[in-house]
Amino acid sequence: LIAGLALSAGLGCQSVPDSARVANPSPAFTDSGELVRPEGWEAWVMVGASIGLSYTEPGAAPEAAAAPAPAVTPASAAAPGRFHNVFMQPWAYRHFLQTGEFAEETMFVLAFYDPSQDADPAAAGFYEGELSSTIEVHLKKQGLDDSGWGFFGFSGDAASGEAFPSEASCYTCHAERADLDNVFVQFYPALRGKLPGGSEE
Amino acid sequence: LIAGLALSAGLGCQSVPDSARVANPSPAFTDSGELVRPEGWEAWVMVGASIGLSYTEPGAAPEAAAAPAPAVTPASAAAPGRFHNVFMQPWAYRHFLQTGEFAEETMFVLAFYDPSQDADPAAAGFYEGELSSTIEVHLKKQGLDDSGWGFFGFSGDAASGEAFPSEASCYTCHAERADLDNVFVQFYPALRGKLPGGSEE
Repeated sequence: LIAGLALSAGLGCQSVPDSARVANPSPAFTDSGELVRPEGWEAWVMVGASIGLSYTEPGAAPEAAAAPAPAVTPASAAAPGRFHNVFMQPWAYRHFLQTGEFAEETMFVLAFYDPSQDADPAAAGFYEGELSSTIEVHLKKQGLDDSGWGFFGFSGDAASGEAFPSEASCYTCHAERADLDNVFVQFYPALRGKLPGGSEE
Repeated sequence: LIAGLALSAGLGCQSVPDSARVANPSPAFTDSGELVRPEGWEAWVMVGASIGLSYTEPGAAPEAAAAPAPAVTPASAAAPGRFHNVFMQPWAYRHFLQTGEFAEETMFVLAFYDPSQDADPAAAGFYEGELSSTIEVHLKKQGLDDSGWGFFGFSGDAASGEAFPSEASCYTCHAERADLDNVFVQFYPALRGKLPGGSEE
């Protein structure tokens, strides 16, 4: 709290608080080249939530879809659908606000929550219930794929995750249909319309 | 970016970056005692999202409800319902993780988004569309109400907002039905189950 208040008041800075480092991670890799599962992302900037969001019509068989075949989001089939929250490192968010671009080493974490109405006094609608231990990461880093980004999955409690192969549909879909640099900013209220024209922070 | 990377790498600190102050505000008041509309809350910690969440059964008239009469959330009537995101200052979130309590001057911002399926390639489900200019704030501060908290509404582009009177149903409902200190932590995945038992950050 003291560190927080000092920051809040703009007082002198003795050292970078641990909390700043926790909140501003860069990607780390294992010796075998897997991405280390990010920690602390719940306190990153949440750029947008969705529920049951899918890129195919309900009930449409992928084979029946018009060309180019729409990609299916990895986990969005069940009704009423899970909540998807997308988080971004605070430093990467500030870089985006300042430049309108995504910096190298930007990470987006996609987290999944069951829709719930169990806890009192919820009587209609849904709040975010159980968090899935599976998360996915979209990382901007040269050398992973021609798009300049890589997708990683972390199942269960896996401490690290492999990049999806470049043939995975997520790469093509994000490259062709995302509004800015492979990122679906059109779905994210904290990013949409924030492309800077001036020099203000 | 430079400030962000410096924090990320844990390098020496020349000054507190502006971004830290923006991200860690304390409440401010006008001369007439209204709360100044908080800024920059989109980059605070998003503790939980919901859609159409209401505390009364769909279609139930408030008069017909069993005693104690359930309170109605201020903006949750329309179907399929709006997204509600709840944000908390980063310093207040860290204080909660460390102590299990909400610090004086903790603020929660409640923001409303229309559910949307308009932007390609969304085909099923909903993402967070237009952000309402109306927000609500729940502020922990002695002297506002016997509960130790106050509720404030900011309609349209109002630069400041008055506290709701203590007779408003939100005070009673939060005092009686929230799991911890007037806060519906039962609905917030970033807070539920995070009550600390040890001393780790």
